[in-house]
Amino acid sequence: MKTETMHEKLSIVCFSGDYDKLLAAFTMATGAAATNRQVTMFFTFWGLNALKRKHGRSALGRTPLARLFNWLMGGLSNLPLSRLNFAGLSPRLMEGMMRKNNVATLQELMQAARELGVRMVACEMAMHILELERGDLMDGVEDIVGVATFLNESRDAHIIFI
Amino acid sequence: MKTETMHEKLSIVCFSGDYDKLLAAFTMATGAAATNRQVTMFFTFWGLNALKRKHGRSALGRTPLARLFNWLMGGLSNLPLSRLNFAGLSPRLMEGMMRKNNVATLQELMQAARELGVRMVACEMAMHILELERGDLMDGVEDIVGVATFLNESRDAHIIFI
Amino acid sequence: MKTETMHEKLSIVCFSGDYDKLLAAFTMATGAAATNRQVTMFFTFWGLNALKRKHGRSALGRTPLARLFNWLMGGLSNLPLSRLNFAGLSPRLMEGMMRKNNVATLQELMQAARELGVRMVACEMAMHILELERGDLMDGVEDIVGVATFLNESRDAHIIFI
Repeated sequence: MKTETMHEKLSIVCFSGDYDKLLAAFTMATGAAATNRQVTMFFTFWGLNALKRKHGRSALGRTPLARLFNWLMGGLSNLPLSRLNFAGLSPRLMEGMMRKNNVATLQELMQAARELGVRMVACEMAMHILELERGDLMDGVEDIVGVATFLNESRDAHIIFI
Repeated sequence: MKTETMHEKLSIVCFSGDYDKLLAAFTMATGAAATNRQVTMFFTFWGLNALKRKHGRSALGRTPLARLFNWLMGGLSNLPLSRLNFAGLSPRLMEGMMRKNNVATLQELMQAARELGVRMVACEMAMHILELERGDLMDGVEDIVGVATFLNESRDAHIIFI
Repeated sequence: MKTETMHEKLSIVCFSGDYDKLLAAFTMATGAAATNRQVTMFFTFWGLNALKRKHGRSALGRTPLARLFNWLMGGLSNLPLSRLNFAGLSPRLMEGMMRKNNVATLQELMQAARELGVRMVACEMAMHILELERGDLMDGVEDIVGVATFLNESRDAHIIFI
């Protein structure tokens, strides 16, 4: 039997920690949530940078290697642009262009996502590799889940990898 | 009730402006359209570079900031490779390899996409941030749409983010 | 008629040859296969690096241009990190962090994928552009297929582009 296929759910894998890609992820998430879609964002690897409680560089982790890596990765206020980054100058330029044209900035979009009920979860394996703990992440992160669980919950959803 | 789920539509979010990634996007778009799938390409951020009327660098936008940014971003003839770009040398090398092996180049694929009825639309928000206007884009761009509209139209489609 | 839409199949386009992105691809592939999903991985462009028989740099291809390009691209043991690569130092650091925290490395995940029956295929067009031949790829690659065939086989699957 053939039927029309409709997805009412949207799942986004936020792998990238680039400013512009996170902007795209949160724009899609809020756009879908505002039109009554159920949205889950699964943050992994570089994407976890957006969820760290400390927005600047911080040496999280137990071992020296993890502490170095987390420091290098930075946090929400160090997100690079995926191109033309110019050592962090461009995300600031782009934010300026967004404010000037009355477009919501990343932090405003993240706040809107929370208010619209977008579910944000962190990847268990990536947390483990980077030696991050629950307390290192900001409030609003609902859960730490494995990739198999996430994929299982998304069987009836669109899955977008960013 | 459980039924077999088939998607007859394909939606591609062209976020990246990399030569190789746009090549992948248009290869999938034409491949799907040639087998009777309905295809929509939604161009946003760097992806808009592929649609600018001027193929080289041009200072589009009203404010100095947007004009600088658009100049830096370039157009269809400045698209970088996502790796091993070597200041723009590699896209030319790759095009040489493609011609040599009788594979369609990006511009040929774009032309084929238009002829196969692939629908190309531009992201309203990205146009707004970059201060681009309808007239800055090449012919064949059918519409400027918001992300919520695009997602809504794609509820019964595959959504691929590139 | 409206029914609940479930995808039991997962198709992953492995376009990127970045160490961290391939890690994400194989983690999702094995996670889905372990929970009885039918998984196909379609390797194209840089992603083909993961499948080359020779893990180091090798000058594959008939023409000087292809030979240069394949040498520059490298193989499984030269995969860069998508950020903070530091000339190849970081993939080694990350592997160290993974071993330390008892997380499977990329090669272990690839082995697990094969054992779980994940189907790995190579993109016909990319093989053609890079002048690669069947014999240049490692055992376990089941087929060389065109993108239209892949998309057609994936009509009832999730499609994720990495």
